[in-house]
Amino acid sequence: MNSENFSISEKIVSASYIRQGLQARRSHEQLIRLLLEQGKCPEEGWSESTVELFLNELAVMDSNNFLGNCGVGEREGRVASSLVARRHYRLIHGIGRSGDIAAIQPKAAGSSLLNKLTNSVVLDVLRMAGVRSTSSCFVVPMATGMSLTLCFLTLRHRRPKARYIIWPRIDQKSCFKAMVTAGFEPVVVENLLEGDELRTDLEAVERKIQELGAESVLCVHSTTSCFAPRVPDRLEELSVMCAKYDIPHIVNNAYGVQSSKCMHLIQQGARAGRIDAFVQSLDKNFMVPVGGAIIAGFSEPFIQEISRMYPGRASASPSLDVLITLLTLGANGYKKLLKERKEMYTHLAKEVRKLAEGHGERLLNTTHNPISLAMSLDSLEVRNPDAVTQLGSMMFTRQVSGARVVPLGGEQVIGGHTFRGFMSHSESYPCPYLNVASAIGITHGDVALCMRRLDKCLRSLRKGVGPEEAGPEDTCTEPSLVE
Amino acid sequence: MNSENFSISEKIVSASYIRQGLQARRSHEQLIRLLLEQGKCPEEGWSESTVELFLNELAVMDSNNFLGNCGVGEREGRVASSLVARRHYRLIHGIGRSGDIAAIQPKAAGSSLLNKLTNSVVLDVLRMAGVRSTSSCFVVPMATGMSLTLCFLTLRHRRPKARYIIWPRIDQKSCFKAMVTAGFEPVVVENLLEGDELRTDLEAVERKIQELGAESVLCVHSTTSCFAPRVPDRLEELSVMCAKYDIPHIVNNAYGVQSSKCMHLIQQGARAGRIDAFVQSLDKNFMVPVGGAIIAGFSEPFIQEISRMYPGRASASPSLDVLITLLTLGANGYKKLLKERKEMYTHLAKEVRKLAEGHGERLLNTTHNPISLAMSLDSLEVRNPDAVTQLGSMMFTRQVSGARVVPLGGEQVIGGHTFRGFMSHSESYPCPYLNVASAIGITHGDVALCMRRLDKCLRSLRKGVGPEEAGPEDTCTEPSLVE
Amino acid sequence: MNSENFSISEKIVSASYIRQGLQARRSHEQLIRLLLEQGKCPEEGWSESTVELFLNELAVMDSNNFLGNCGVGEREGRVASSLVARRHYRLIHGIGRSGDIAAIQPKAAGSSLLNKLTNSVVLDVLRMAGVRSTSSCFVVPMATGMSLTLCFLTLRHRRPKARYIIWPRIDQKSCFKAMVTAGFEPVVVENLLEGDELRTDLEAVERKIQELGAESVLCVHSTTSCFAPRVPDRLEELSVMCAKYDIPHIVNNAYGVQSSKCMHLIQQGARAGRIDAFVQSLDKNFMVPVGGAIIAGFSEPFIQEISRMYPGRASASPSLDVLITLLTLGANGYKKLLKERKEMYTHLAKEVRKLAEGHGERLLNTTHNPISLAMSLDSLEVRNPDAVTQLGSMMFTRQVSGARVVPLGGEQVIGGHTFRGFMSHSESYPCPYLNVASAIGITHGDVALCMRRLDKCLRSLRKGVGPEEAGPEDTCTEPSLVE
Amino acid sequence: MNSENFSISEKIVSASYIRQGLQARRSHEQLIRLLLEQGKCPEEGWSESTVELFLNELAVMDSNNFLGNCGVGEREGRVASSLVARRHYRLIHGIGRSGDIAAIQPKAAGSSLLNKLTNSVVLDVLRMAGVRSTSSCFVVPMATGMSLTLCFLTLRHRRPKARYIIWPRIDQKSCFKAMVTAGFEPVVVENLLEGDELRTDLEAVERKIQELGAESVLCVHSTTSCFAPRVPDRLEELSVMCAKYDIPHIVNNAYGVQSSKCMHLIQQGARAGRIDAFVQSLDKNFMVPVGGAIIAGFSEPFIQEISRMYPGRASASPSLDVLITLLTLGANGYKKLLKERKEMYTHLAKEVRKLAEGHGERLLNTTHNPISLAMSLDSLEVRNPDAVTQLGSMMFTRQVSGARVVPLGGEQVIGGHTFRGFMSHSESYPCPYLNVASAIGITHGDVALCMRRLDKCLRSLRKGVGPEEAGPEDTCTEPSLVE
Repeated sequence: MNSENFSISEKIVSASYIRQGLQARRSHEQLIRLLLEQGKCPEEGWSESTVELFLNELAVMDSNNFLGNCGVGEREGRVASSLVARRHYRLIHGIGRSGDIAAIQPKAAGSSLLNKLTNSVVLDVLRMAGVRSTSSCFVVPMATGMSLTLCFLTLRHRRPKARYIIWPRIDQKSCFKAMVTAGFEPVVVENLLEGDELRTDLEAVERKIQELGAESVLCVHSTTSCFAPRVPDRLEELSVMCAKYDIPHIVNNAYGVQSSKCMHLIQQGARAGRIDAFVQSLDKNFMVPVGGAIIAGFSEPFIQEISRMYPGRASASPSLDVLITLLTLGANGYKKLLKERKEMYTHLAKEVRKLAEGHGERLLNTTHNPISLAMSLDSLEVRNPDAVTQLGSMMFTRQVSGARVVPLGGEQVIGGHTFRGFMSHSESYPCPYLNVASAIGITHGDVALCMRRLDKCLRSLRKGVGPEEAGPEDTCTEPSLVE
Repeated sequence: MNSENFSISEKIVSASYIRQGLQARRSHEQLIRLLLEQGKCPEEGWSESTVELFLNELAVMDSNNFLGNCGVGEREGRVASSLVARRHYRLIHGIGRSGDIAAIQPKAAGSSLLNKLTNSVVLDVLRMAGVRSTSSCFVVPMATGMSLTLCFLTLRHRRPKARYIIWPRIDQKSCFKAMVTAGFEPVVVENLLEGDELRTDLEAVERKIQELGAESVLCVHSTTSCFAPRVPDRLEELSVMCAKYDIPHIVNNAYGVQSSKCMHLIQQGARAGRIDAFVQSLDKNFMVPVGGAIIAGFSEPFIQEISRMYPGRASASPSLDVLITLLTLGANGYKKLLKERKEMYTHLAKEVRKLAEGHGERLLNTTHNPISLAMSLDSLEVRNPDAVTQLGSMMFTRQVSGARVVPLGGEQVIGGHTFRGFMSHSESYPCPYLNVASAIGITHGDVALCMRRLDKCLRSLRKGVGPEEAGPEDTCTEPSLVE
Repeated sequence: MNSENFSISEKIVSASYIRQGLQARRSHEQLIRLLLEQGKCPEEGWSESTVELFLNELAVMDSNNFLGNCGVGEREGRVASSLVARRHYRLIHGIGRSGDIAAIQPKAAGSSLLNKLTNSVVLDVLRMAGVRSTSSCFVVPMATGMSLTLCFLTLRHRRPKARYIIWPRIDQKSCFKAMVTAGFEPVVVENLLEGDELRTDLEAVERKIQELGAESVLCVHSTTSCFAPRVPDRLEELSVMCAKYDIPHIVNNAYGVQSSKCMHLIQQGARAGRIDAFVQSLDKNFMVPVGGAIIAGFSEPFIQEISRMYPGRASASPSLDVLITLLTLGANGYKKLLKERKEMYTHLAKEVRKLAEGHGERLLNTTHNPISLAMSLDSLEVRNPDAVTQLGSMMFTRQVSGARVVPLGGEQVIGGHTFRGFMSHSESYPCPYLNVASAIGITHGDVALCMRRLDKCLRSLRKGVGPEEAGPEDTCTEPSLVE
Repeated sequence: MNSENFSISEKIVSASYIRQGLQARRSHEQLIRLLLEQGKCPEEGWSESTVELFLNELAVMDSNNFLGNCGVGEREGRVASSLVARRHYRLIHGIGRSGDIAAIQPKAAGSSLLNKLTNSVVLDVLRMAGVRSTSSCFVVPMATGMSLTLCFLTLRHRRPKARYIIWPRIDQKSCFKAMVTAGFEPVVVENLLEGDELRTDLEAVERKIQELGAESVLCVHSTTSCFAPRVPDRLEELSVMCAKYDIPHIVNNAYGVQSSKCMHLIQQGARAGRIDAFVQSLDKNFMVPVGGAIIAGFSEPFIQEISRMYPGRASASPSLDVLITLLTLGANGYKKLLKERKEMYTHLAKEVRKLAEGHGERLLNTTHNPISLAMSLDSLEVRNPDAVTQLGSMMFTRQVSGARVVPLGGEQVIGGHTFRGFMSHSESYPCPYLNVASAIGITHGDVALCMRRLDKCLRSLRKGVGPEEAGPEDTCTEPSLVE
């Protein structure tokens, strides 16, 4: 209510109580003011009531909610279902304009503010999470893969002769398809085995650049967060190499915001060499629904160029989700989640090591991977070659989600390219293994339950009781392996 | 509740009342059964309670909502904010998998069902709306422009030598950018002036094909719904031509689902010649928030190929919105909206004609355009060359949204191409004009208000009272012209 | 947002768009201002977004939502469940104080405003609905019966010697119990049969007053809305009689607000004689959930005396419901509902007459009852004495709710008093009958469905197919008769 | 979804995923089954999704939500505003019938189940909280005061000659008014000062009984939870006395459920002597909105008699709130809250003692009061006689809610009775004091903030800077003293 309405209220309810109400309202306004002025994630999280107050205020500013509006265009933000209107807080116009996903919409001042603020708050969080020199970023309502495609399509205009993307192998379909969809030929560079770890083969990358000629290379496409025993790419060295050969460098930082190590690698890479853009998932880093990503970089003009490549308006839904989440958590809340995740990683590693040893297996030594862990399944396979895949099914059936079993010898053809040893990031990794990860939001309960169920599955498999014998509930034949 | 729980309830509350409750529950279940069995839009719309019951049931089937789940992966559908969880009905996992946006997710049976059913219901509605022979379609969480880009990128793999897209001119940025973003060179074919209408220059299109060589043409990119005085492209002839030269044909049907004429054109084109895919906006046709589109076609394998080009998972939000909306409206509700829209078109045309004549202008004769109308602004311009652009600002300020004023002589460079007479789909349209449209959901109130305000604006402009004189509220200098 | 925040927003998003947003916000504020200033039901209903904006503003003013509040009392408005907080819009402190249910709470300026405004808006609506001279009213979170009890308890303090309440018979339990619960002895005055109608026996009432002595009579307790063939009491004559003998007069106007006739009776009674308070249900007149009533009258001090009798705070839930409803409907929306109800009454009467005649029955002639209708069941009973009660069960099972079958010869003891011919308001009504009512919100669909099902039931009963033979679904033995 | 729908789903989405979904659904069903079977508060709290699933299931069973229902009665559960329908989960019919607030409604099986289950779960919690031998209870949508009135009104029918209620003084308006409203004359028995504590004067009570004669006494009305320095009544001795004189005994246990001491007193009283009913607030004990109470006792017939005194249906809102809350918390969650409250009491006492000593005051020694604490304000008053009341205003203005300042010499007339030393439960308590309480849900933050602000206020008052000098924000003249 505006001050006039507060004054009138004083005639209805005792003035001193109304004044206290007004003062209380001001404290919400004050939080909103800070957000608008600084464009930063608030230190302390907002209460749900402040968040909803703010979203309602934004909605009021969009023309579809004007009390006196009349619409005679082809896109007027009309909503047929009130369930739908409500779940979007009546913010219907999406974000961006035909020209630019970051542009302001005349019909939708509120949605435009939402869009600007989200990008600004997210930028603040990326810096806070470790990539201090990020200069610009924006949220796109597309997952990481398609967002990478958009980056590649943008680079095409800068490097019309380029046909290849150099890509240190990581066995995950969508980042591979991101290159194929953009119309480029991925040049897969196999990883080197160092101890248990699979790491970037820098010499092979450089050889490829020289072989193909820098001009014909669109970019190097590297990766931070990944499943162990692969570890984040050697970003600093790759960045220096990209600078040297004047080749763009796009980093797939899918779920790396949650790890200070991944973020540090990007910061160092950008400092020492060249990183054009780094792309991260919203859902995996900020605990929101699937469907959004952040495209970020160190040159504002380049990031703007990408945002201008997106043709047309776009869904505001991922922006809304991440803004609500970050306002609710606050910077301190998000930092706390990051800290807890790190601690849970240590705890998970300890637990896996203990369990592995109890079953004659071992925790692979992959200390460069700050999120994912791998436990060998050697002795399990020796007894029963099918047991490894059976383990995957059994875990799935027992509602352990996200545990990933990698048998030896998989092979898969994607976009014309044959991946030997698929899922293991390597043509011939020495042993089959099981992955678990300490991702943001994981709890002690998750770890305890997983360990208990894994232990049970391994015991029954050792006894020769595989899924077939284990009763109907367990005979899950669908592989939960490849997601 | 299952039947066991109903039985127990009979001990608490009189059995006959509980049995009536059980029977009531069955009537909801029955509606859900029909949807699952037939995959069609229900004849009669569902009540909100059935819709929410169904969505809650779907959510229960996703692993992030399993009561006994433990998650040790990198993507577990955790949600930090309960506001966010609620607004998505706890459906967090999005749609698709890394391989395919239409694929089933092991972790999310409910979201997978949602995705399949949405595509199926939407297919039913496209057929019902007039393109009876549509064989396949899917919802993408991207607006029309980016969805067109995805179609073009898919075609690239089939036509590696192609560099050009032939495009009968339509002055809308995002469809032009869709081609540029995909890495192709748009070949703009100017329209022919027939009476007041701007129509496809079929000969010029054929000339271009011959000139460039069919092999180097990725596709013809035609348009149905558009602003008058342009009218939908001659789809049948274009389709026959595409078939003759073996060139793919992609139709931008942005807001054409709401018009039986546009849908009929597509149906005829596909019957007589070749249409590979037609793309339509969710928000403009189904009254949902901005951000989704439907890619549809007549060959299931090709549509699947497009869906497999989308790298990675995607937001379920647009699918959820359109499913809620169609279940709530039912086929009859949607048909009623279409019928009302058509009637409002006739009403709007009558009103505009009346008003135009009162101001010495006329309603342009554009009968082939079933949605958009144009009224000349000749006499206004004669008096005062600035009045045309002033009119745009005045309408915006008076909360008439969507009215579009097109002055003569605009010029704009987009992606390197110079458009003379920009906004008018023509290098030299004979007169300036104002557009209004009868789009789905428009009401008698919208028309009446718009006419009243337009009349007032025209009157004050004739008196020489432009925005400058009209007080601070009116001095809006931002152009509401180009959206 | 306050003006300062709007100013800052102009630096983020184009100033002219923000100013339009600000203007849009003002139009909501303006609606709120009118409400605060006038305390009346707005002419036109508010949009849901204005309603929610307003409720959120109220909530912000309550101390439990103060961002800096610290609570060290025994009642701090803490809420354990966020589901609960949300459904009450975070208005947790209820209404009133220990001294008075209408009092202002220092801790809860917002809830206090809500309470005052609700009472004010409801007063406006009572006047608009016909009792123009109502001077004061308040909403209580108790149904009609308990609210009547509160009125009687208040009168006790004024008339310490009174022991009796004179009550023209109406066969509805809760209003009888209202007197017993308050500790008084109801003196039941049988009705007179005039044609088909049962009407107040004024002479008998006066005889009772003389017999008992005015001093020993707490009040006359009359009724407006009731089931046909009873009709509203002769309020004017009763009021004059009360004035003459200086006896208070309390009117049970349960669902009478929806009928201009009932309201007119009260207005006339108050003008010509004495009415101390009239009590009406919230749910039955305003389409809100069960649980609230309005206590209204013509002397502000007396109504205040009642409100001060309620010991302690009370639930704000019924106030909130009726305020949301009236703001959403607006005066015009509510009047439209009243008008439609009246038309549906005529329609229903016509349909019942037609159906009755087809089955050898007749619509009873009860024109003084503006809501409820009765159709004789004479010929049905002649054939089969059980058929009348069977009809009740069959209608219940077929999901016709609210149809009420009244057999002859019922008898019931309530609070020590034996009611012969219970349910029929008379010791010996001439025929059994079926009641249906045209209550606010009834639709053509309700009437059509009811007639169809009733027709079917009567047909099968005439064929001798009663519930027993009609299969398990129909064998409902629970009486739906007495509600 | 029922099993048939799950089967159909298996044709759409992989059978094994659907089966896992079905299994997940069963785990929710299983929780509901336990609740229905046992009628107890679940050990572990339910997730919000289980709670909402359950409420939606209940709503489906009410006739207003039947898809095929037609309503022709006067009360059909129609709802005009969808905001209102949603916030009540579409449970519109309230609870009870005209005859009995605990009765089952034929039209509303779901609401009836809700009502029965709530009463059953609440009974379980009362037993768990310490009154193990409670035999029966029910929730009423009235606050504590009005619920006490209902108990007194019920007793009237058992004791027609009684006129007095004996009441050990407690200075809280609504419990006094509860007696007056019911039409009885409260006989106030002053408390004894024992050390700092004010305790029941048992001899005076017995004297009053003998003086008035047991027959003319309706009941003894005692109190547990109260503001220090008063402490809970000597329930055991009073109960024995009531048994001896055959006088009913009603206990006002307003916010005593949260204290094991208060509950123990009731349990002991009932074991050793006579307690007919004890009444407690919902909001103060279960962190729900204001407006409900639980009436409980040890004789099922008597509790039923009370529930049958409530004339008419009633709001289901308080029942819904407490059910949601208890299902969400679970027994363990509620016990945890109780445990934390007890710990916070100790912490608060320590902090107040420390602060008091720093200001030359002392924490009064009131160990029999398990919730409320009092700190003397002697030295403050000595310096400045107005400072005590100023302190109250200052605390209110600084958003410390619930702190209660009690000056000497207050006097108030309520219902004809003059209370000297009002607010202090005593005609002449030796010193002024300040109350703070450790109520359920209080946090360390509350205590810390309160201490800091109290310290500041005391400092500035000692410096002679009272509210008048402290600027406009502080000049609150409304007394926050009496609530």
